[in-house]
Amino acid sequence: MDYQNFTKQIKNDSFEMAFLSSDIRNNALVEIMKSLSENKERIVSANSEDVKAATRDNLPAPIISRLKFDANKLQDTLNGISDLIKLPDPLFKKVFERELDEGLTLHKVTCPIGVIGVIFESRPDALIQISSLCVKSGNCCILKGGSEAKMTNRVLFDIIKSAGLRAGLPEGFASLAESRADITELLKCHESIDLIIPRGSNSFVQYIMEHSKIPVMGHADGICHIYADKGADLEKALPVIADAKTQYAAVCNAVETLLVHKDIAPTLLPALKEILDEKKVSIRGCLRSIEIINCESAAEEDFMTEYLDYILSVKIVDSIDEAISHINRYGSHHTDCIITGDEAAACQFMESVDSAGEYQNCSTRFADGFRYGFGAEVGVSTGKLHARGPVGLDGLVSYKYKLFGNGHIVADYSEGRKSFNFKDK
Amino acid sequence: MDYQNFTKQIKNDSFEMAFLSSDIRNNALVEIMKSLSENKERIVSANSEDVKAATRDNLPAPIISRLKFDANKLQDTLNGISDLIKLPDPLFKKVFERELDEGLTLHKVTCPIGVIGVIFESRPDALIQISSLCVKSGNCCILKGGSEAKMTNRVLFDIIKSAGLRAGLPEGFASLAESRADITELLKCHESIDLIIPRGSNSFVQYIMEHSKIPVMGHADGICHIYADKGADLEKALPVIADAKTQYAAVCNAVETLLVHKDIAPTLLPALKEILDEKKVSIRGCLRSIEIINCESAAEEDFMTEYLDYILSVKIVDSIDEAISHINRYGSHHTDCIITGDEAAACQFMESVDSAGEYQNCSTRFADGFRYGFGAEVGVSTGKLHARGPVGLDGLVSYKYKLFGNGHIVADYSEGRKSFNFKDK
Repeated sequence: MDYQNFTKQIKNDSFEMAFLSSDIRNNALVEIMKSLSENKERIVSANSEDVKAATRDNLPAPIISRLKFDANKLQDTLNGISDLIKLPDPLFKKVFERELDEGLTLHKVTCPIGVIGVIFESRPDALIQISSLCVKSGNCCILKGGSEAKMTNRVLFDIIKSAGLRAGLPEGFASLAESRADITELLKCHESIDLIIPRGSNSFVQYIMEHSKIPVMGHADGICHIYADKGADLEKALPVIADAKTQYAAVCNAVETLLVHKDIAPTLLPALKEILDEKKVSIRGCLRSIEIINCESAAEEDFMTEYLDYILSVKIVDSIDEAISHINRYGSHHTDCIITGDEAAACQFMESVDSAGEYQNCSTRFADGFRYGFGAEVGVSTGKLHARGPVGLDGLVSYKYKLFGNGHIVADYSEGRKSFNFKDK
Repeated sequence: MDYQNFTKQIKNDSFEMAFLSSDIRNNALVEIMKSLSENKERIVSANSEDVKAATRDNLPAPIISRLKFDANKLQDTLNGISDLIKLPDPLFKKVFERELDEGLTLHKVTCPIGVIGVIFESRPDALIQISSLCVKSGNCCILKGGSEAKMTNRVLFDIIKSAGLRAGLPEGFASLAESRADITELLKCHESIDLIIPRGSNSFVQYIMEHSKIPVMGHADGICHIYADKGADLEKALPVIADAKTQYAAVCNAVETLLVHKDIAPTLLPALKEILDEKKVSIRGCLRSIEIINCESAAEEDFMTEYLDYILSVKIVDSIDEAISHINRYGSHHTDCIITGDEAAACQFMESVDSAGEYQNCSTRFADGFRYGFGAEVGVSTGKLHARGPVGLDGLVSYKYKLFGNGHIVADYSEGRKSFNFKDK
């Protein structure tokens, strides 16, 4: 397949896509939702085949559990599309309007990014969510899902593609890539693809960054911290730490390291250990924590590790400054929390920690597009450019400047015959 | 020099920089402005040495002219800092505040990007502008200027650095890199440098993108177009085309290609040729234009060339659709203009042309941070992520999410004991 040519055609279609009204895009989402619902059985049956194959191939249980896509999960995803349709149009929004001089007016207006390549993991609902977000935001998407979900993805894609075309979207609005070799080829198409969103392991995201000139919006590890400050209220601290570690351990917004102020460690750690023992979480503590509770000892390596498992590393610190330094040094700039009632300490922590999310007195597990009220999320970005943290519709738009004149020329301004007179409207 | 370690220290200082109040940053700018003004003679004299060396080395005249930095140019740049001080603080701005549920409130707040490496050309005022923009936006900068301006840059940097430190900025707020080898080392420091802004040739920007994992905000060529639609008013079209080509030909926002609707070509082209002849602009026309005016013939290559010179390529098109396709195919997504009185045509052009700026009836030379009212510009981005078009203070900030809770845990929401109730404030 000639990928350069293939993506060039998608790029051309993206110009048409950018010009479609909100009604056409929303109607396409309605059509997609209806068609997915009508084909429920076909989808569930394709998914059973994937699950059967994954079981036969002895894939790990968590992967099989994420792979399963039954009628209930489909319904949840359809409800997501329904919510998405109701969200305001992210396109054609005037960010500002400024008169530069009489009759010369500048508009800054949102527009789609263009062509987005998304590489995602085994969950089949990701395909539906991402393609819906792209339709809503006027972007063309090229989708590459996990190979374990091949049958499910193909059926979902066929349904979405036909429904979108029926509703008047251009041919290139969505495309499916199926093999690893496709990824290699796509990474070379920097003239036609505007953005790659890889969802997967840190090393995978790094690989993409190293092998393409296309901008990448990806997340690295989620090494999230909770820092229990000296004034921390144990009744808040303990449930928050337990939730952040155990509510869903295999995800990037689970906590991996607990930092504890030395003054509170003698009371907090024993109480915490009791709770975590019950939940089968093993603790790896620094030398000072081992003097307080009975646990394994943590190596420096532990503080750089995203366990994604029932393990928590613990370190006692002398001050909030030490906690902040530790987080900025060992963290992954994802989400970090301070447990404190001291507003000045919370403020210092929030300004000085260099992460997408800084929390006070709540679980790091809240770091998620749905929980932030974005309707859906396309991923979580730990980069600082464009979009940071959970990325919803806003992260899928760019903007352009429109300047309306009446024969205005620059020479008049540079030679002093006219001067700018900025007026924001 | 150990660049990994050097940039790590700057990264550490960037956390302190992010926490400084607007007053401290503005006072530092006042101090920098005063100190530059007091050292006027030292600056001008260092610059004469650079100019002398450049003349001796037979550098091209345009480079020498850009290199010259006299008392007047210094005063202009100081006025720029003075304007910058008056602009509102780009940091700590609440983008939104949303209650997710009772007592659980999410703030999206602007913050600096962190550490920015800027590689710029021979103009010494660039060093002052970029470092001032970084101080105002709370970013640490690593500056690498053109080697022709070495003496001037060193003096400017020494003055700015001492003034900033006196005003209480952290040691790493600004650093100077002086050799090409420094660039190679800096490109490897993706753990400490958050953004590279290269200003220079297209091939240079491409080189940076290929040799670093650090995100790059750079502009490629500026192949700007003007399309004269069939209804174009000649009295507007001719001066706009002449201004866009000749007001300053050596810059990225000068027009390189004129597209003319076939219906208007017979009247527009002869009149334009007369004007351009006078200004010593040579025309390279498509076969159809050669039938109307006497000019050289354009090869396909011409439509992909950023002349930066007194040359204009001209192509006659059958329709606005052909013009839009040509621009999206051959352009560089910088700035493109339609000359028309037809609002529907202007609207189609503005939505379908995939560039940072789409203009109606005015010169492409307006594409500039000062002319847009941004106070100053750090560069022009032809990428679509983060910042697009002329980049002012807004392009130098990121944002973070602050979530304030009161012991909130996710299990309560996932197990149905509580539910989200989004309220924007």
